[in-house]
Amino acid sequence: MTPYSCMTRDALEAEYAKVKAEFEACKAQELSLNMARGKPSKAQLDMVSDILTTVQTADDCFDDGIDTRNYGELAGLPSARAYWAEMLGCKASQIFVGGVASLNLMYDVVARAYSHGLKNSPRPWCKEETVKVLCPAPGYDRHFMITESFGAEMIYIPMTPTGPDMDLVEEYVKDPQVKLIWLVPKYSNPDGIIFSEETIRRFANLKPAAPDFAVMWDNAYGVHEFSGDYVPFPDILSMCAEAGNADMVYEFASTSKITFAGGGMSCLACSEENLKYLLDLFGIQIISQDKVNQLRHVRYLKDKTHTLEIMKRHASILAPKFQVVSEYLSREIAPLGFARWNDPKGGYFVSLYAMPGTAKRVWSLCKEAGVTLTNVGATYPYGKDPDDSNLRIAPSLPPVAELEKAMEVLCVCLKLAALEKFLAE
Amino acid sequence: MTPYSCMTRDALEAEYAKVKAEFEACKAQELSLNMARGKPSKAQLDMVSDILTTVQTADDCFDDGIDTRNYGELAGLPSARAYWAEMLGCKASQIFVGGVASLNLMYDVVARAYSHGLKNSPRPWCKEETVKVLCPAPGYDRHFMITESFGAEMIYIPMTPTGPDMDLVEEYVKDPQVKLIWLVPKYSNPDGIIFSEETIRRFANLKPAAPDFAVMWDNAYGVHEFSGDYVPFPDILSMCAEAGNADMVYEFASTSKITFAGGGMSCLACSEENLKYLLDLFGIQIISQDKVNQLRHVRYLKDKTHTLEIMKRHASILAPKFQVVSEYLSREIAPLGFARWNDPKGGYFVSLYAMPGTAKRVWSLCKEAGVTLTNVGATYPYGKDPDDSNLRIAPSLPPVAELEKAMEVLCVCLKLAALEKFLAE
Repeated sequence: MTPYSCMTRDALEAEYAKVKAEFEACKAQELSLNMARGKPSKAQLDMVSDILTTVQTADDCFDDGIDTRNYGELAGLPSARAYWAEMLGCKASQIFVGGVASLNLMYDVVARAYSHGLKNSPRPWCKEETVKVLCPAPGYDRHFMITESFGAEMIYIPMTPTGPDMDLVEEYVKDPQVKLIWLVPKYSNPDGIIFSEETIRRFANLKPAAPDFAVMWDNAYGVHEFSGDYVPFPDILSMCAEAGNADMVYEFASTSKITFAGGGMSCLACSEENLKYLLDLFGIQIISQDKVNQLRHVRYLKDKTHTLEIMKRHASILAPKFQVVSEYLSREIAPLGFARWNDPKGGYFVSLYAMPGTAKRVWSLCKEAGVTLTNVGATYPYGKDPDDSNLRIAPSLPPVAELEKAMEVLCVCLKLAALEKFLAE
Repeated sequence: MTPYSCMTRDALEAEYAKVKAEFEACKAQELSLNMARGKPSKAQLDMVSDILTTVQTADDCFDDGIDTRNYGELAGLPSARAYWAEMLGCKASQIFVGGVASLNLMYDVVARAYSHGLKNSPRPWCKEETVKVLCPAPGYDRHFMITESFGAEMIYIPMTPTGPDMDLVEEYVKDPQVKLIWLVPKYSNPDGIIFSEETIRRFANLKPAAPDFAVMWDNAYGVHEFSGDYVPFPDILSMCAEAGNADMVYEFASTSKITFAGGGMSCLACSEENLKYLLDLFGIQIISQDKVNQLRHVRYLKDKTHTLEIMKRHASILAPKFQVVSEYLSREIAPLGFARWNDPKGGYFVSLYAMPGTAKRVWSLCKEAGVTLTNVGATYPYGKDPDDSNLRIAPSLPPVAELEKAMEVLCVCLKLAALEKFLAE
């Protein structure tokens, strides 16, 4: 196979005719496939469904003398706080156990920042002239949606193979209007990058001008390897504390991709001072979270070792799907030289960079052929991919057979859009 | 027994000596009893614990084709929305199913009002010079805490036996700065009042100056009779719609005192237009709520008829406790003529009006004797009971034997404080 950039015009036109015919054949299949959202598959959910029987009777509901069926323990069941502390490598006194969604916790921290201010805020953010938020991209669209909803200005920070561009980050935080940065430090969404030790060290040692600058450390995929061994991650809380930045970081995690998606438990980890401040605010919003579900999780997941065993089982279901994506792209696309992608070892996404200027077109062609990808631009602040290139592939939900069909379609569309562009020049 | 107001000074002094000795005897018992928060008792929680086995297997998790273990259905499982619609007498399309806490939903509506504005808000409330909130009192302390946390000005509206003073309410809402009112329309917390038809009609027909005036209809005890038959309540949503005020009302409910306290499911009911507006905001905060728990509740509670049967069983546990309170007060206090209280048929509280000027003293004396009551003033905005009289008794949690001891102590303290006051004059 010849890279498209090396083909003659005649060869490109012949290739175009061939690929166009393949595209029409795809459309004729009347497919309806979704590779848009990172949802666990039925097989994964079935695998963990014995969590449902860990708490069955009235007596089962007691944990160290606490009746989980009644009000109390705002910060969470002590055993649940201990579980998260072990998972994240921090202290139980630094943990707030939330409801089913870490997104909800992240939203609420931003919401409190706006209405009340964070612990070291000179004033609530709604009283500031301008609030700027650093948005490494490609990134998680829901982080950007929160930011845009509250009216903050989003600043695009390019990702590098070791994490966000730290020179840029360090420069921007000199501006006191810059109040927050969104990060997914391990298997970043969607690139699947693991921040290097150097990147993490530079984050912990940031010198932000804003006294209430918030590092939102969204540790969504901290134990979510699907290939190879578990890769340990550091305790960002103690690293920040050692650098004199104890109150700067807010770490988030959840069991949405360990147990049930939207039915697990989440947590926020932060300095004890920050937690004290936030508990005063959270305690006005709620009396206590669902401790019965916390107990189910503590009993089922047990500890980090056992959780990692469960993740190995998730991996056995996920790995073949990521392999399908990788195989199709390696076979069909790599030799043609116009696209590249990340081959992550964990997380839920493959970040594909189509020929610059063709991502929107690829998305539309896929849609026409019955395959839904994540909305183009979603991985960038304001939906603006400067290169119109990034496509986020979420292979977890469909069965392998459907995934193969979807990848077949995607490859055809990638080629078609590239050829259109080559021929237009 | 002679009313204290009719006693001679000598008689008062003799009574004082007698009651003081009783108080010392109480202290000597070294009790530690709590009648402060409306928590269901262990017996009640045990009674409903078979909810834990309604969803046990992977197959159990499916509801009308929806896998409750995966993301989706932001507004709630259709069957859960239908359940709440039947409970409240409104339409499923008007229901948002929340997490474990209606308090959390109420807080989030206020929080959104502040940061973004409600559907008809000219601007977010954080951009208003002043926001005023009407606070019928005695009322629910957590409503007042939310209000104070967001910096709104609280206006005290006295309660009457038929509900809040509607002349005052109708007058105050002419001020466009008045943006919200907190109401518990059935078995109000703490008085146990059921709003009369006339009160409800006047609420539905309010003519507020603020276009985004919010009636927070906290239907916390809508099915919570402990004595006698279920008393139906009207569908406030349709009443408001008929009056041209469809978007004015936000109704809240939860199963915290039907199933598990802090482990059940909650709901918000409002106009479809309001819901559409709020879903856009809620959808940025969370992908979806815990549908597995919603399914447990739908399977266990089934429908309104069955729910009312469950409430009858709660009543059989609660009624004897309220009877203890009533008996002690009727026997020990009523004849002395210095105090009064409400004898509700439902809800979780008895609202006791001690001799004006003695509530704080009674609270302290009880504390000294090892009995904790709700903080005095908690039932009023800014903690300011204009009469220093109201005491909220929550009899649900302790077993009957403990309750009897606690009531014994309370009666002694009520008398002691009253006698101190009589003798001081």
